[in-house]
Amino acid sequence: MRSFGADTRMPTLAVVLDLIRARGSASRVELAEATGLTQATMTHAVRKLMQLGLVHEVGTAPASRGTPRRLLGIKADACSMVGIQFDTYSATGVVVDPAGTVVAQRELPAPGQRPPQEVVADLAEGVRLLLKDAAVPRERVLGIGLATYGPQDREAGVLLTPQPTPEWQGHPLATSLSAATGFPVAVENDATAAGIGVQTLGGSASSSASSFAVVYMSGGIGAGLILDGQPYRGVTSNGLELGHISVDALGPPCHCGNRGCLDEIAGPITTTAQARADPALAHRIAPGADPLAGFLAVALAALDGDPVAAGLIDTSAQRLAVATVTLVNLFDIGRVVLAGKAFTDIGPVYRDALQTVLDRAVFMRHVHPVQVELASDVTQAAAVGAAAVVLRDLLESPDTA
Amino acid sequence: MRSFGADTRMPTLAVVLDLIRARGSASRVELAEATGLTQATMTHAVRKLMQLGLVHEVGTAPASRGTPRRLLGIKADACSMVGIQFDTYSATGVVVDPAGTVVAQRELPAPGQRPPQEVVADLAEGVRLLLKDAAVPRERVLGIGLATYGPQDREAGVLLTPQPTPEWQGHPLATSLSAATGFPVAVENDATAAGIGVQTLGGSASSSASSFAVVYMSGGIGAGLILDGQPYRGVTSNGLELGHISVDALGPPCHCGNRGCLDEIAGPITTTAQARADPALAHRIAPGADPLAGFLAVALAALDGDPVAAGLIDTSAQRLAVATVTLVNLFDIGRVVLAGKAFTDIGPVYRDALQTVLDRAVFMRHVHPVQVELASDVTQAAAVGAAAVVLRDLLESPDTA
Repeated sequence: MRSFGADTRMPTLAVVLDLIRARGSASRVELAEATGLTQATMTHAVRKLMQLGLVHEVGTAPASRGTPRRLLGIKADACSMVGIQFDTYSATGVVVDPAGTVVAQRELPAPGQRPPQEVVADLAEGVRLLLKDAAVPRERVLGIGLATYGPQDREAGVLLTPQPTPEWQGHPLATSLSAATGFPVAVENDATAAGIGVQTLGGSASSSASSFAVVYMSGGIGAGLILDGQPYRGVTSNGLELGHISVDALGPPCHCGNRGCLDEIAGPITTTAQARADPALAHRIAPGADPLAGFLAVALAALDGDPVAAGLIDTSAQRLAVATVTLVNLFDIGRVVLAGKAFTDIGPVYRDALQTVLDRAVFMRHVHPVQVELASDVTQAAAVGAAAVVLRDLLESPDTA
Repeated sequence: MRSFGADTRMPTLAVVLDLIRARGSASRVELAEATGLTQATMTHAVRKLMQLGLVHEVGTAPASRGTPRRLLGIKADACSMVGIQFDTYSATGVVVDPAGTVVAQRELPAPGQRPPQEVVADLAEGVRLLLKDAAVPRERVLGIGLATYGPQDREAGVLLTPQPTPEWQGHPLATSLSAATGFPVAVENDATAAGIGVQTLGGSASSSASSFAVVYMSGGIGAGLILDGQPYRGVTSNGLELGHISVDALGPPCHCGNRGCLDEIAGPITTTAQARADPALAHRIAPGADPLAGFLAVALAALDGDPVAAGLIDTSAQRLAVATVTLVNLFDIGRVVLAGKAFTDIGPVYRDALQTVLDRAVFMRHVHPVQVELASDVTQAAAVGAAAVVLRDLLESPDTA
């Protein structure tokens, strides 16, 4: 639970590091101006970041008067973070440096219906291979960020759901992956991680002060919110379950307890099942393909001009758009970023469909526009964000600040 | 728009005053412990509140060692704030003191379909009568808080909607009421104001650190969110438009641009229209009654055991419950408080209906319980919150801190 004393302090070090990363290099004066922090606070923050080895002086820039200003840059080889995103039908790992560069990446075996012990062993082997690919020595690795679905006890690193099999309920995911790898492990909601990944990967949404929602679609549908550069967490970091809002009060019961959940009505599992049931389309999906692979095949068929596939994708997109209007009308957000593997090829089609509906139906559209865009890397955003969480956790720790 | 530099500072003075109000009296040491602020910050905050005349010493309490601790209390006669809540079918005014006590209250003429100039003149006359009732001299009045519907430009005090008539679109509400009364006017979203009112009126949700959502039903349906004691604002304070989320993607078009909006499916206007269309129930509604008065009559009929009325109320409550599950699943909130005039008599029926559905369908119910409760004064919560906003604005102003 959030508490007044602990969480209201702004994570100054993380904000300053994000800003230096977004700008490439910056002077202390620029950083103080951009953040609104005092010169004294900025001097302290920069000293701390230099002590941690994350920031160094990279040159000077002429000042309008007085001595030239020293420019600060990120020391990219200071450390590395591993990020993993997984859900039932996908798993991706990356190694990221403090400058936000992805130095290694791998698709990992998807969990499927296997028990958590087997999946953790796979993830640990993936970490070993990723670090080998990146040629990063173990002592430079800060930790592993693990982005996955909820509900979860984020602080304890435990999943609180029997999905996909009963053994997952209460499994100590962080502890077991930590034991298997020897690194500290931080668990994060996958859609929230995608939001942090969007900031890390840069582009228009990368500024520390930016606010945007993420609509995330992989095996299922979720959402995240970055508000003034910080993740929205609600009371237990289990918010923004977009896939489990009802879009049809009389719809089919969902395992979550609700009826007509967006996930059951518009998600990849349903679209794939609909495609398999259609003789004209079923042959486009490999017999053993899981629902996410099936969805990616339907998406390609739609892009190839198959009218049945295009119709299924359009239905899914229209329903996702209605739910996204709900998201915007409740959170009052001016930017929606799409991320997640399901958007790999078909992202622009969903983006355009959502933009059209939002332009027509969002409650506050006459107050401010709502822009829909694709993450610069829809496939890796969540894994990259998970890696970034490891560094954020260090910078936001009371021991560091 | 929120900006990093301006809005991330905690409003220390407001938090400290809220805490003294909630506790009746408190020592500086207690206040520092409860807020997590340092002794130095607390000493500074208390000095500032004493300079403003809002806080004074009210006695001493024995300390475990050393000299007795001086207890601080709120000086209730330091100033007064006027709070007004209005929508098309209702208007209520209150005078509130800094201790949160309602010292005067009046029902004001409902705006109906009249132009804003006429309504502002009515509100100004209401303010004059309220201050007479309260026997408050003009120079003690800090200002007027005006809680109403959106979308709105909260900072400019302007409504950005042509509801109920085109003249309202862009009308400078704050400026015109200020000109008509001679007092500064702050505009606030009505559901958010109800949340602040719930904190002001006390009870279990009054702690500064509390987090809860408000489901607000008056002429229409809205929602608000208090997170760690502070209102959630999104990017333009136009969030939580619960009445304009779609609960039926194929439902009737709404003036807002969306289809099947909760307000059109479950709100008092619709319930009243349904009741008027039923020969067995129509006689319970006075011929000239507006939709909110009509709804209150249907609610009383339901409480009297009329089965048709009870059925209409149940349908409305079930649909509101589905939307409240959406609200909780997106914001991850542990407490939902019902406020607004529509709940005047029928509140407990809605509370029980929502609790039953939330217990069954909320995504994170195994992580934490979600409690539904009624505001201690559903009718006045928004007006009281509007009054409290005036004092908050003073305490959060950079000139004060």
